[in-house]
Amino acid sequence: VVEHRVYLQAPGPTNIPQRILKALDQRNMASRGPEFTALAQEVLEGLKDIFETDNEVVVLPGSGSGAMEAAIVNTLSPGEAVLALRSGHFANRFGEIAQAHDMKVDTVDFEWGEPVSPEAVRQVLAEDDQHRYKAILLTHNETSTGVTNDVEAISQVRRELDHPALLLVDAVSSLGCIELPFDDWELDVVATGSQKGLMLPPGLAILALSDRAWQATEESKTSRWYWDLRRVEPLLGSGLFPYTPPQPLIFALREALTMFKEEGLENVFARHERLARGVRAGVRALGLEVLAGEEHASNSVTTVLLPEGIAYEELAARMRSHYGVVLGDGLGELSDRAFRIGHLGALHETDIFAVLGALEAALFELGMECSEGAAVAAAARAVR
Amino acid sequence: VVEHRVYLQAPGPTNIPQRILKALDQRNMASRGPEFTALAQEVLEGLKDIFETDNEVVVLPGSGSGAMEAAIVNTLSPGEAVLALRSGHFANRFGEIAQAHDMKVDTVDFEWGEPVSPEAVRQVLAEDDQHRYKAILLTHNETSTGVTNDVEAISQVRRELDHPALLLVDAVSSLGCIELPFDDWELDVVATGSQKGLMLPPGLAILALSDRAWQATEESKTSRWYWDLRRVEPLLGSGLFPYTPPQPLIFALREALTMFKEEGLENVFARHERLARGVRAGVRALGLEVLAGEEHASNSVTTVLLPEGIAYEELAARMRSHYGVVLGDGLGELSDRAFRIGHLGALHETDIFAVLGALEAALFELGMECSEGAAVAAAARAVR
Amino acid sequence: VVEHRVYLQAPGPTNIPQRILKALDQRNMASRGPEFTALAQEVLEGLKDIFETDNEVVVLPGSGSGAMEAAIVNTLSPGEAVLALRSGHFANRFGEIAQAHDMKVDTVDFEWGEPVSPEAVRQVLAEDDQHRYKAILLTHNETSTGVTNDVEAISQVRRELDHPALLLVDAVSSLGCIELPFDDWELDVVATGSQKGLMLPPGLAILALSDRAWQATEESKTSRWYWDLRRVEPLLGSGLFPYTPPQPLIFALREALTMFKEEGLENVFARHERLARGVRAGVRALGLEVLAGEEHASNSVTTVLLPEGIAYEELAARMRSHYGVVLGDGLGELSDRAFRIGHLGALHETDIFAVLGALEAALFELGMECSEGAAVAAAARAVR
Amino acid sequence: VVEHRVYLQAPGPTNIPQRILKALDQRNMASRGPEFTALAQEVLEGLKDIFETDNEVVVLPGSGSGAMEAAIVNTLSPGEAVLALRSGHFANRFGEIAQAHDMKVDTVDFEWGEPVSPEAVRQVLAEDDQHRYKAILLTHNETSTGVTNDVEAISQVRRELDHPALLLVDAVSSLGCIELPFDDWELDVVATGSQKGLMLPPGLAILALSDRAWQATEESKTSRWYWDLRRVEPLLGSGLFPYTPPQPLIFALREALTMFKEEGLENVFARHERLARGVRAGVRALGLEVLAGEEHASNSVTTVLLPEGIAYEELAARMRSHYGVVLGDGLGELSDRAFRIGHLGALHETDIFAVLGALEAALFELGMECSEGAAVAAAARAVR
Repeated sequence: VVEHRVYLQAPGPTNIPQRILKALDQRNMASRGPEFTALAQEVLEGLKDIFETDNEVVVLPGSGSGAMEAAIVNTLSPGEAVLALRSGHFANRFGEIAQAHDMKVDTVDFEWGEPVSPEAVRQVLAEDDQHRYKAILLTHNETSTGVTNDVEAISQVRRELDHPALLLVDAVSSLGCIELPFDDWELDVVATGSQKGLMLPPGLAILALSDRAWQATEESKTSRWYWDLRRVEPLLGSGLFPYTPPQPLIFALREALTMFKEEGLENVFARHERLARGVRAGVRALGLEVLAGEEHASNSVTTVLLPEGIAYEELAARMRSHYGVVLGDGLGELSDRAFRIGHLGALHETDIFAVLGALEAALFELGMECSEGAAVAAAARAVR
Repeated sequence: VVEHRVYLQAPGPTNIPQRILKALDQRNMASRGPEFTALAQEVLEGLKDIFETDNEVVVLPGSGSGAMEAAIVNTLSPGEAVLALRSGHFANRFGEIAQAHDMKVDTVDFEWGEPVSPEAVRQVLAEDDQHRYKAILLTHNETSTGVTNDVEAISQVRRELDHPALLLVDAVSSLGCIELPFDDWELDVVATGSQKGLMLPPGLAILALSDRAWQATEESKTSRWYWDLRRVEPLLGSGLFPYTPPQPLIFALREALTMFKEEGLENVFARHERLARGVRAGVRALGLEVLAGEEHASNSVTTVLLPEGIAYEELAARMRSHYGVVLGDGLGELSDRAFRIGHLGALHETDIFAVLGALEAALFELGMECSEGAAVAAAARAVR
Repeated sequence: VVEHRVYLQAPGPTNIPQRILKALDQRNMASRGPEFTALAQEVLEGLKDIFETDNEVVVLPGSGSGAMEAAIVNTLSPGEAVLALRSGHFANRFGEIAQAHDMKVDTVDFEWGEPVSPEAVRQVLAEDDQHRYKAILLTHNETSTGVTNDVEAISQVRRELDHPALLLVDAVSSLGCIELPFDDWELDVVATGSQKGLMLPPGLAILALSDRAWQATEESKTSRWYWDLRRVEPLLGSGLFPYTPPQPLIFALREALTMFKEEGLENVFARHERLARGVRAGVRALGLEVLAGEEHASNSVTTVLLPEGIAYEELAARMRSHYGVVLGDGLGELSDRAFRIGHLGALHETDIFAVLGALEAALFELGMECSEGAAVAAAARAVR
Repeated sequence: VVEHRVYLQAPGPTNIPQRILKALDQRNMASRGPEFTALAQEVLEGLKDIFETDNEVVVLPGSGSGAMEAAIVNTLSPGEAVLALRSGHFANRFGEIAQAHDMKVDTVDFEWGEPVSPEAVRQVLAEDDQHRYKAILLTHNETSTGVTNDVEAISQVRRELDHPALLLVDAVSSLGCIELPFDDWELDVVATGSQKGLMLPPGLAILALSDRAWQATEESKTSRWYWDLRRVEPLLGSGLFPYTPPQPLIFALREALTMFKEEGLENVFARHERLARGVRAGVRALGLEVLAGEEHASNSVTTVLLPEGIAYEELAARMRSHYGVVLGDGLGELSDRAFRIGHLGALHETDIFAVLGALEAALFELGMECSEGAAVAAAARAVR
């Protein structure tokens, strides 16, 4: 079959640009040989620009979830209290990891679709005058709801209150898409994976740590080995890894970093902002409801409530088989109530027209009354 | 830069599907070794299905133009008369090749945008009771005007008049897109290249010959060597080539043939017909004029007259740089008066939405008053 | 530069065959979509043949070391006693992981270059009539010394003594190279990675578990999340993963498994045995000493003592830059005293001739008196 | 099956380096668009360095044979006399092409295995005081016999005699392997293909022309269209082609040219010289006879007489199936009497050791008495 050109619009893994695809299929190298370590040094140095930090960045074979576990087991000890700020599926996961490692997890919950309120955080931290909380777990971009949290404001609150808790940030679906300057915002750990904003296949756990976080690594009493950053620390800057690194992804990451440099990080963020605006305008022009309010809507994923009478599986199947467009499903409490459109990574206006054109055609074919052409037209106006 | 996903909508070279791309980069083989000849045998056998013929198909390193030359130099001798049926740029080229080889070329010309009239052909052939014309040169799908000629009717005329002229058909932009059953329609030579309906890169000259054409090969007095099919004839069926064959294209052709088999040739034709209908409906919804009448409009390329006040270069540049869409220019007398949208090869509805969405946005941005969303909406309705 | 064809003869990462390389660069898929899960099911099922087991095989994003940690944290609890059988660098690592997770690790050490003695194990286990040892840590193929341990005999000892300790086996450099039938030998966990016998790039942690091991997973009190197989257990057979899987490696693994099936696992083992014999014969013909005795010598890696007066760095640099051959260094107590030749994965006689031809040329050029041609000749005789 | 790493030692198509392989699988581009024409300009400019000329180089879709035909049909007219200097299969072919186009071909024949004698040429040209000969056809490197002709001396003879005949050179198996400075040696046409010294797949006809040759192009009366360089001339320097160019090969050629630049053309020639010396020494050490005398032996291919009692097919089959080495067969009068080892393109010492190691093993296995290791040892000494 002449297959459809695939529009992979789940919020990750994302579309891999041809340049990056072509970087993947390289012969193996000796992982500790000069050729590979020079490459790794270059890549790890280049990643600092994406994190906007002068701190060292750590890359390990694993996934974004692994990076989240690494953040926790290296900075906290069993029995210590952490504050989990939760407004969706992935924020819940962050808390669960801490729980699994026997930290004492207190949660502040927000309605799904709403952002974490910095004021609510202020209140909780202000009450914690004993500084029980050793860390705050925060999801930058909640992939389940399509809401971006105000990490800067929350970090600011912490500083204003002089609270020493480390700020651990899950940036799995935001790094390289939405502004998150590690140094400027005084973050402590930012964890991510390779298969979203970085436009790579899955397979890397990536994280940046502040000096305070590196110090915590020395003090943590959590039993660990694979994710133990004390084994990484002596290798920083050497291009060496404690375990054989996933070479194809390192080759590909070099290409991705070159593309970021060519476009400019600010322009990458602006492109995501523009396309996200277009998607939301298009979706709304069809009479559908976007879960997130415009003010906190994510630039990398849009969660849309399903129209009356159309089941997710039905819509997803039609989009996939008739139109080659892969959507994301509703997660957790949004299961069967929403679908998600990822618009992160390698994407441009024309692709958005394609996806919205397919969406309006599919909805029409599934019986929804919607004025055809409306979504594309609204998106075209919104991105201009 | 995170480059645009490219929508290559010139009428060739066309978009190469990922499966085919991945077949290209194979190590060289010994061209006369068992591994490669087995592959070549399979591919040459498989090509018969696309030509819908039991005759042997010839593949040589070259281009579609080379296949056209091979058709002429092998079946005609210097000084012999040929009838060139012309209604566009590529029909003119076919005549020029015969001229270059000292055939006596008589032409019947039709207005650009109109098809070759079978009745006009009947008249000319009927008058040729001496059977001066040894061959008729006919372009199946005129890539410059977006008109498909009625090859079946013209072949029929020839038979009805018992005229012995060979029918040589240029199918460069139609083979694998638009029905052209070699055996059923009693054609003599059909010539094509690799970079259009076959979804490959350029580099192959491909042609099928009837028994009469093979016989003419023996009788032709035209001086020739590279394109001399007498050197190919003893190799038919062996998987051997007279010159080192372009291996990457043979590897890729195997994959393309598999894809044709999976989809079914009838379905491939139907898909082209459907998408072409969508493109024309979309273009007209913007108030633009399609050169070809609906009855003879091509299923592989649409020639559109440029709107007042918009220059081709301006439109093409905007489409390319802002939207990643590559258009074709007007050729010959349509230069600066038209643009062309190729819709052949690996293409589906969603891609059409993308291209039309980009086109309406670009035209709007260049100052044309057009109702946004109209093209996509019209196309969606037309293809349903 | 026209680079050397690289002979990657470190004992991993190994040479990736072209067929597998070509499987790597595929576009991303939705990890939980039908296309990818069907592929994953097929691959996980196929892996059982390599492990020679009916038990389920687990694949996680990570490395072979991660698989070793997963083996330990899922089957043991803090404070429990384990018996680490050590005769080299990687056996030491296995013990360290258990230590890091607060198990009580008793060790039995053997000289480097010697195998683990089943009789010694019998003695220790016989004395443990209280069944303090919950697990035995055993390295199948010690990559640092080039010695293969008799896993079958050791497993047999345990059964004869009716000792309930689980047998956890590190097969990182042996799976797919040297016989290790999981079910027949009644093993409990076998852990490996992707970049050695499986001929892939690094990036996968792979392990098989017996029923007893799966049960232990439920009972283990070790704090864990990423490697927690209780999160994998409900997904067994579904093609789903608890974290986004490293797709390129899954695509590539399918191709590798096809190649194993085509050749036949027995034939793969026989090829490794034959080539290993050739390498050892060749090396000895140059007057060099192989660390391992012939009886326990590994079929995947040969550790060779450096000749008097030639430093490892000097030899490795010359082999790499003049001959395109990458060697492995001596590890731990063999550092600066030995070099290693990996001969696992995609390798044949001709490659062995190349490597030995380069080795004898390089040694000669570094001043060693050796009769040129001797290594290749000896290898040719040995593999016949 | 874990296939053999293939050593493609027929004298073309040759081994494609990984860097070039990876350049092949690019999406199609608009052949007349700015992106592709810029690339083509760069590549055509870069080719001048390989030809060592300031003249323009022409690239057309086709093969090396096509380039030979282009050389003839553009510079000669039917009935004109040409002098064909012949000492092997491919020299014969060059004459046949001229014959096919009705030139009057006089031949001077030399024994196979011997070079063309400049003195013999001097004699013939001296006798041609009417300057009947419009062109001389000369094969630089005779791929069938493994003999390199002294093009410089023959060109010199022509100048000394002030004979105006154009010197047309077939450099299919020598360009990029063996010195052939177009301008310095005052050549008129040099024709080649892509699949030998340039390390690419087959598919390009490549030729350079002197001013006199370009002028002859205007004067030639030979009927032609596809190969007509008058259609190329107005496009020189533009990056445009008269027919859709084989894009993958143009992408790949850019990479090949980069590799030439990195290594330096002189070093490429020296490497070929060194490896050729090694192959001949190795072959002779086995007691086999090299057809060519050492003085004229080719640096790109060695023709070896088959030992008594061993048939080519038997040797070739064993080398291919047991050792992954592809040899070339004896051509024309050497059929069944010789085999050929190509050593051109991407090749280094270690590969030579591999090929010779396999050759000695195969010959031994086929019953020849040869001292194993001898070939590798002799080659190692010879290349040092």
